[in-house]
Amino acid sequence: MPQVHLCEVGPRDGLQNAKQLMPTEAKKAWIAALAAAGLKEIEVGSFVPPKLIPAMADTEEIVKYALGIRGLKVVALAPNLKGFQRAIAAGAHKVTFPVSASRAHSQSNVRMTPEQMVDEVRKCAAWPHPGVEIEGAVSTAFGCTLQGEVPEDDVVRIATELAGFCDGVALADTVGYANPAQVKRIFSRVKKEIGEKLEGAHFHDTRGLGLANALAAYEVGVRAFDSSMAGLGGCPYAPGASGNVITEDLVFMFESMGVSTGIDIEKLLLAREILVKAIPGEPVYGHTPVAGLPKGFRAAA
Amino acid sequence: MPQVHLCEVGPRDGLQNAKQLMPTEAKKAWIAALAAAGLKEIEVGSFVPPKLIPAMADTEEIVKYALGIRGLKVVALAPNLKGFQRAIAAGAHKVTFPVSASRAHSQSNVRMTPEQMVDEVRKCAAWPHPGVEIEGAVSTAFGCTLQGEVPEDDVVRIATELAGFCDGVALADTVGYANPAQVKRIFSRVKKEIGEKLEGAHFHDTRGLGLANALAAYEVGVRAFDSSMAGLGGCPYAPGASGNVITEDLVFMFESMGVSTGIDIEKLLLAREILVKAIPGEPVYGHTPVAGLPKGFRAAA
Repeated sequence: MPQVHLCEVGPRDGLQNAKQLMPTEAKKAWIAALAAAGLKEIEVGSFVPPKLIPAMADTEEIVKYALGIRGLKVVALAPNLKGFQRAIAAGAHKVTFPVSASRAHSQSNVRMTPEQMVDEVRKCAAWPHPGVEIEGAVSTAFGCTLQGEVPEDDVVRIATELAGFCDGVALADTVGYANPAQVKRIFSRVKKEIGEKLEGAHFHDTRGLGLANALAAYEVGVRAFDSSMAGLGGCPYAPGASGNVITEDLVFMFESMGVSTGIDIEKLLLAREILVKAIPGEPVYGHTPVAGLPKGFRAAA
Repeated sequence: MPQVHLCEVGPRDGLQNAKQLMPTEAKKAWIAALAAAGLKEIEVGSFVPPKLIPAMADTEEIVKYALGIRGLKVVALAPNLKGFQRAIAAGAHKVTFPVSASRAHSQSNVRMTPEQMVDEVRKCAAWPHPGVEIEGAVSTAFGCTLQGEVPEDDVVRIATELAGFCDGVALADTVGYANPAQVKRIFSRVKKEIGEKLEGAHFHDTRGLGLANALAAYEVGVRAFDSSMAGLGGCPYAPGASGNVITEDLVFMFESMGVSTGIDIEKLLLAREILVKAIPGEPVYGHTPVAGLPKGFRAAA
């Protein structure tokens, strides 16, 4: 049976953009419920300065808690060597580095050019990190609200450079500009350059194309997807960015296609209840949670 | 340049399910604005008993009005010979007949078995209808909220029968159960049986898969799609049905892929304003209208 691997990024990408802070204990309960639903990989936080993103101030504690969940790969984001060192110290299994292909977004997000950011990740890769996986995530890979079009050659070049010293590379549509034709084209081009090092796809649903883009990526061989429960998410330094692909609907799409996600949709909806209760004023999205499963629905696995 | 043909079904599928009645004059203004945005085909109403669906009571007047819009194909739905005769008298260019593949939905919707409904459409096709195109729309073709699974063989059989005397056949996911793998499989099977008579795809966005399903259909050669502005829609006799694929997002998806729809998105948003003002309490959907077009966006045509 065909399979895909999902990484839940809500606790990081979602909560960093939420208007409300989720209390640390609620984060733990939510992450535990996500893992109980079958998520095998969760991006639980980011090691950025707490004064810049207060919602991520408890990332160290959250990483340590998540390490206690059997079978869960614990991911954290880091924007530089300092963040990487904190992630290693906390014990994260995997650290993801955002490298904007857009010059304008790169300056806004990390105050570096894309080349400087690639160098920063290279420096991290050279730093001792026994047992810690490194992912280079090419962000704004499909366009940028600041810069507009992002040349595909820039995306391919950055992904190829990152593949030289990262364990895996992901392509991210940070601001929801991607379309299915472009997704197929760019993923195929990058795959041709870096082969199996091309891992994941990270889509936002800003213009409603999240699932269509995920389908397009699946059709060109992508088997790892980021998504965010209830469609939370965005980027604090990318104006106009909005929520990620919705985990609940993405799971429903794949399972209904006969592609196993390893995730139990009923249990996923229990995790959603925890989320909704913990940040009650936050807008939440998702069609499947509202409509329910089809009569006679059978999951893939 | 690749092209798709869109039929706006909001004035029929959308308004028949809206809680508010749209005044006749507002309907006319909305339809005119849709046509001005580039829609070449609009399903403007249905010839059903007004006491059953009051929102469709003015269909005759609306058809006559729409006939005055240059270059517009005016479509009406009819559930039986009586409705067909009214549609012919009003001057509709095309009449679409819903034929449920689900026995349970067929009884609920038209109080006939699928076989009886096929016979009813056959009777209509035999009735003189000079210059009027007939479409057989196989509804609940991907599942049914009442019956659950709908056997694919039933869908293929009904579509093939309808192709014997209709000008075209469409497949409709009336209740939003379809998934992309199923869409590819069933459209391919039906295409093999009836070839060019297979015309359109009608998807609902109930579980968020509307655009992904449209993409899947496009990939197996479908070039005609129904959609509804602001995602209005449903089926009054199919519990749990909700809105159609959203015209605004569908147009954005295709145009951004380089597939021409012939529709001007900016003008489409003007038509949306008319809709929103005419039924102000109605929930409206759509990502692209909220997010706006990407910076530097270029339409396909």
